[in-house]
Amino acid sequence: MLYDDLARIRADAPLVHNITNYVAMNSTANALLAVGASPVMAHALAEVEEMVGLARALVLNIGTLSPPWVEAMLRAGAAARARGIPIVLDPVGSGATRYRTETARRLLDAVAPTIVRGNASEIASLAPDAGAAAVGGTKGVDSTRGSEETAGMARALADRRRCVVCVSGATDVVVGGGRLARVRNGHPLMARVTALGCTASALIGAFAAVDPDPFQATVHAMAVMGIAGEMAAERAEGPGTLQLHLLDALHRMSAADLTARARIEGP
Amino acid sequence: MLYDDLARIRADAPLVHNITNYVAMNSTANALLAVGASPVMAHALAEVEEMVGLARALVLNIGTLSPPWVEAMLRAGAAARARGIPIVLDPVGSGATRYRTETARRLLDAVAPTIVRGNASEIASLAPDAGAAAVGGTKGVDSTRGSEETAGMARALADRRRCVVCVSGATDVVVGGGRLARVRNGHPLMARVTALGCTASALIGAFAAVDPDPFQATVHAMAVMGIAGEMAAERAEGPGTLQLHLLDALHRMSAADLTARARIEGP
Amino acid sequence: MLYDDLARIRADAPLVHNITNYVAMNSTANALLAVGASPVMAHALAEVEEMVGLARALVLNIGTLSPPWVEAMLRAGAAARARGIPIVLDPVGSGATRYRTETARRLLDAVAPTIVRGNASEIASLAPDAGAAAVGGTKGVDSTRGSEETAGMARALADRRRCVVCVSGATDVVVGGGRLARVRNGHPLMARVTALGCTASALIGAFAAVDPDPFQATVHAMAVMGIAGEMAAERAEGPGTLQLHLLDALHRMSAADLTARARIEGP
Repeated sequence: MLYDDLARIRADAPLVHNITNYVAMNSTANALLAVGASPVMAHALAEVEEMVGLARALVLNIGTLSPPWVEAMLRAGAAARARGIPIVLDPVGSGATRYRTETARRLLDAVAPTIVRGNASEIASLAPDAGAAAVGGTKGVDSTRGSEETAGMARALADRRRCVVCVSGATDVVVGGGRLARVRNGHPLMARVTALGCTASALIGAFAAVDPDPFQATVHAMAVMGIAGEMAAERAEGPGTLQLHLLDALHRMSAADLTARARIEGP
Repeated sequence: MLYDDLARIRADAPLVHNITNYVAMNSTANALLAVGASPVMAHALAEVEEMVGLARALVLNIGTLSPPWVEAMLRAGAAARARGIPIVLDPVGSGATRYRTETARRLLDAVAPTIVRGNASEIASLAPDAGAAAVGGTKGVDSTRGSEETAGMARALADRRRCVVCVSGATDVVVGGGRLARVRNGHPLMARVTALGCTASALIGAFAAVDPDPFQATVHAMAVMGIAGEMAAERAEGPGTLQLHLLDALHRMSAADLTARARIEGP
Repeated sequence: MLYDDLARIRADAPLVHNITNYVAMNSTANALLAVGASPVMAHALAEVEEMVGLARALVLNIGTLSPPWVEAMLRAGAAARARGIPIVLDPVGSGATRYRTETARRLLDAVAPTIVRGNASEIASLAPDAGAAAVGGTKGVDSTRGSEETAGMARALADRRRCVVCVSGATDVVVGGGRLARVRNGHPLMARVTALGCTASALIGAFAAVDPDPFQATVHAMAVMGIAGEMAAERAEGPGTLQLHLLDALHRMSAADLTARARIEGP
């Protein structure tokens, strides 16, 4: 099942349209190519709707947001809704500034993403009871919380927004439609490489492009990302070489690699 | 001859002014440095003309275009024309959306680039008989066509625009002034690394900066790019490590490497 | 002393807010993560002041400047001044175009950075007697000058602006408050990798975040950067692999590495 999605990506090379941040663009494009998908980056108002019309998934990421980019995300999101292709939202830094939190909420309202992936602080800032957590609670773009608290807020956001929610961390929690899964793959050194969260969101886009079940697509993408990190860590001497070996691992991982390494719990 | 251009780049370190896309900027700058050139990225309307005045080549790339960047390309292009330095146009994604096709044509009209490099879909969208091909014919930014069809549309574009046209692919076709060459260097894994097409366009800029014959400069740049890819593939375990070894190869390739590996046919 | 700063960065993971150029963003974020800091990139006018409020240092870099980004730098700089956190200015390409020189001077006037780091041409364009040097004197973004001339102009700028000035080159010169130090670490291959100057400026931000003496923080950051380059060069086969090994070295360098390798002269 897990490998089926990966094999389908490699066979179909689905076009994934990304409106993402400047830091992540190169890493994200390379990860999508390595896994077998076809990335495209386009943000001009004059073309985002037409580009969405060619794509099989749309990934929105607010990591270096500014008004024209947010406008492009809204337009692209509406076009993707109209076409019925999956939309992934990565609310980078939501909770750190009001502008990020408000933009993330605006995108949730207007675009109704299929899947939202963030770290615990980001998801907390968007969950229905996110009063105190909404502003000033994030240090940079990373954080950790207790496992039950994490699952609870992911469930609250998923129920409220009728979407799949993935809270990434040492253990990734995926929630949606009453289901919950935990993915325990990955390696601590991954936290020392920039844009790997953004990369995970982009991979979710590729998996959702070929798997009609967005919950399962998200679980599979997070497992593949974590396994690639583990395979890379075995060859890396630090975060620099990890980054490159991770791309190599995405490219060459086999069904046997996935079977041997996947640590997915339920459902 | 081939090595003479490379030696001249290493000796002169020509300044190559790039107005390019966000995905490719870092890769492109590193490739230009690795080959021995001096890259500069500048797109502000307030400075592009002055920066062109310092440069020996201008490279325009529409990969993540938007109106202010297109305006900068038009101004920089006019300044480059006035100075008589070579201009390379990389029409990334032309054919995929109307905005890209129209922008690429506008740049062809207004800037009259010395050299145009794209994949078969991109060149097809700009060739004189590009009716049906102009819109919707591209999947992402990559494609393949028959060898004769490719040469024919490259010739048509080169004749109409009085420029050199390079159609890159498994075999690169270079056409201009009645001449045609094929470069059979490269490695399939290169297609799994982002921005290598953009990098090839930037290298063409460096070669055209030191070689007064733009046809020959283009052939040489494509051969050097392909050979670097081959040398890198011998050490790489996937697309991640390929990218880095390619930069190493650009930096260290010798006259003997080029002589032993170059697969250039005619003229 | 030198290792104390690095240990404090690794322990505290200070948030460093960067408003930097498109070429350097990914490299810079990775270097800050590798050394143990927490990078954030944010440039929207709607959030820069709030983001500065979370940060322990601000790094401003004009490498791909345009009016909205300059406006963001001015606002963020004012907020950082008000909070009393250190501000690092990297005047990339100052001296190459009037727009860059004027913007760098405007930032010096309005923001009064704590530390300015540039190459000899950039610093020359900003020094008080920078008449003829101000325009047209730069080839790309790199240059070299005599050691005494370099120290003299660094002193002049530091005195006039009451800041620390670092002129990077084969030997880095750091001046401020009547003190002068030279750092002789580094490797020639580093000049063939893009954005390493920008990376040095970002590291200075991380060191200034944890060390209340900006002169010392600058000397230490430049030594750590140079030592990482040396350690990387021992494993690299060219500029591509150097870049990755440099990140690994930042991540794993020990007190013993610093003691054995640091080549700092005075004060």
